[in-house]
Amino acid sequence: MSVLITHIGELTTNDHDRPLTDAALVLDGPRITWVGPADEAPAADQHVDAGGRAVIPGFVDSHSHLVFAGDRAAEFAARMAGESYAAGGIRTTVAATRAASDEHLTSHVARLVAEMHRQGTTTVEIKSGYGLTVHDEARSLAVARQFTDETTFLGAHVVPDTDAGEPADATAYLDLVTGPMLDACAPHARWIDAFCEEGAFDVDQARTVLEAGAAVGLGGRLHANQLTYGAGVRLAAELGLPAVDHCTFLRDADVAALADSGTVATLLPGVEFSTRQPYPDARRLLDAGVTVALASDCNPGSCFTSSVPLCIALAVREMGMTPAEAVWAATAGGARALDRDDVGVLAPGRRADLLLLDAPSAVHLAYRPGVPLVASVWKDGRPL
Amino acid sequence: MSVLITHIGELTTNDHDRPLTDAALVLDGPRITWVGPADEAPAADQHVDAGGRAVIPGFVDSHSHLVFAGDRAAEFAARMAGESYAAGGIRTTVAATRAASDEHLTSHVARLVAEMHRQGTTTVEIKSGYGLTVHDEARSLAVARQFTDETTFLGAHVVPDTDAGEPADATAYLDLVTGPMLDACAPHARWIDAFCEEGAFDVDQARTVLEAGAAVGLGGRLHANQLTYGAGVRLAAELGLPAVDHCTFLRDADVAALADSGTVATLLPGVEFSTRQPYPDARRLLDAGVTVALASDCNPGSCFTSSVPLCIALAVREMGMTPAEAVWAATAGGARALDRDDVGVLAPGRRADLLLLDAPSAVHLAYRPGVPLVASVWKDGRPL
Repeated sequence: MSVLITHIGELTTNDHDRPLTDAALVLDGPRITWVGPADEAPAADQHVDAGGRAVIPGFVDSHSHLVFAGDRAAEFAARMAGESYAAGGIRTTVAATRAASDEHLTSHVARLVAEMHRQGTTTVEIKSGYGLTVHDEARSLAVARQFTDETTFLGAHVVPDTDAGEPADATAYLDLVTGPMLDACAPHARWIDAFCEEGAFDVDQARTVLEAGAAVGLGGRLHANQLTYGAGVRLAAELGLPAVDHCTFLRDADVAALADSGTVATLLPGVEFSTRQPYPDARRLLDAGVTVALASDCNPGSCFTSSVPLCIALAVREMGMTPAEAVWAATAGGARALDRDDVGVLAPGRRADLLLLDAPSAVHLAYRPGVPLVASVWKDGRPL
Repeated sequence: MSVLITHIGELTTNDHDRPLTDAALVLDGPRITWVGPADEAPAADQHVDAGGRAVIPGFVDSHSHLVFAGDRAAEFAARMAGESYAAGGIRTTVAATRAASDEHLTSHVARLVAEMHRQGTTTVEIKSGYGLTVHDEARSLAVARQFTDETTFLGAHVVPDTDAGEPADATAYLDLVTGPMLDACAPHARWIDAFCEEGAFDVDQARTVLEAGAAVGLGGRLHANQLTYGAGVRLAAELGLPAVDHCTFLRDADVAALADSGTVATLLPGVEFSTRQPYPDARRLLDAGVTVALASDCNPGSCFTSSVPLCIALAVREMGMTPAEAVWAATAGGARALDRDDVGVLAPGRRADLLLLDAPSAVHLAYRPGVPLVASVWKDGRPL
């Protein structure tokens, strides 16, 4: 059944240089079939009056860690007070996740995905990485797969403690990740990822993980240069990965490598907000010709926001992006980061994933920070 | 009819030193009648299971400018891009507000108040200040009065242009504000306010405005020390006003005056977010014994957010407040700033204005920035 949407405020398509005014849009089933001037719109089975609301593509959140259990609000409060906190950070989440039932993990992910949908996210990537055993990584991905095709195996998140509470041997753990754990996880995953950072995995270890994943057909992505300068971003560029995420500490050579390779720099400003760290410099990347995406990094430790609109507002306030650049990065940019050409753009043949905003233009996502402006969410041609 | 609320996560009352666990709450009509341990709760006509959600007082937003017309999104985008913008800032809003019908202004305020309700604001103060004629200030307040008793006459917002586009004479304008405009506005207002800042009104002019208001029974409040150091905060303390708002640029003598007088410092971090200005130092104020409130300052120019949860998150990220201090400031602090003892605290005899959060504790308002966590809003004992 075809649907014609008229009386749109500004229509951001990401297929035109700037938002369209006096435009209309037709969808048929899960796809968009027509975009153009309202007075030339074809007939359709159903008519939706947008009431002057702006329309934009649904958000493509290319980086999240939703499969976990436990609560770390007290750790957050201690960090904000500048206090040390005895409980063990990510290890707390790993223990709680391992102890949780599949049903608990599934209902928790369902709740967070529903929360994301309400805020306008129509495509979400979900990582494992709080199981860190063959069994717990595989079931984390099986849970995630119930909600999205964009699942990422992140066994190489951190080297887990042994049962005695001592750090396991990194080399032995990597053999597990690239061996039996990968075998168990690959059927549930599209992507493989590693946390390439001091205190996690170095660039050679990350390369080993990505190459093992590639050998079984998984695409690669990387966490890199979040906390320190390092070679992770250049590895991502060298390997031609679609995206490398965080990109907070970059040297000129890193920026040049990203510009040359076309690898998307996915910036996650919710992390810097929630950890009081300096923000990545999006302006520098954009001015160098790098493609930038914005994503939430929703996770219980460093950033428990699922709000892409907040990321847009932060990108404008703190990272030198214009509102239009930030909205592009959170839609078409996220799609590029996931190597997807069916979402992030409103044009004939693309998926009918779109948002109606309680605002006349998408600029209001930055102009009205914190306000829930997403009035309705359409995914695959149907209102959610 | 009495209502018993049980299965509350953490219950923040502002009447106890810390949130209560395993607590219940009873309300009867518009008032709370009982708070205590769930296993001692009295019977009630109706039972609400909070499902483990945290309960807090409704937000008391003591500073907003909702009566206006026109859109300044393009001005915001230009400011964020570091570009100058030819259109005239506040004068744009004044012209659009004067040109708007009463019906337009009323429906616009209704929309913003409904948006505030959805985000948990149960008490809102609304200022005039975009009319700046006798007729337009009075009708702005008459519109605001339809939505709240906390109306504030802000004729002394800025000296308006004359019809020829030249600035009016400040002395002549103040005579108007304290004469015929005050006469027309006082019946619709509880408060009188002035913008005491370089480029607006100096401290002697502000004193004149507040004294004229006091003579006809209006309580005083002040915008001061937003953009520069100045004597406005000390004037507020000297006059014993319940609150002085902004307080970004403070000398030690200002802080001491606030601590001595008990005047509430109302901080408006959405403004600093939206103008890329430095944030006020809440920690310094709290450590000096000053009472701090948080409010939105929702207005079309310097801060078009209506989100008190965002203000809480910013206060924690940027201003050195703990999550508990920020939640207190946005509830009990706002009530103090409005000299109200019926709201902002959940205790027997107080108004049953309360929020259920999609979270186990109020810490999540800062831990989960941007996420719409307000699951339900009760005002005067009824769900909105």
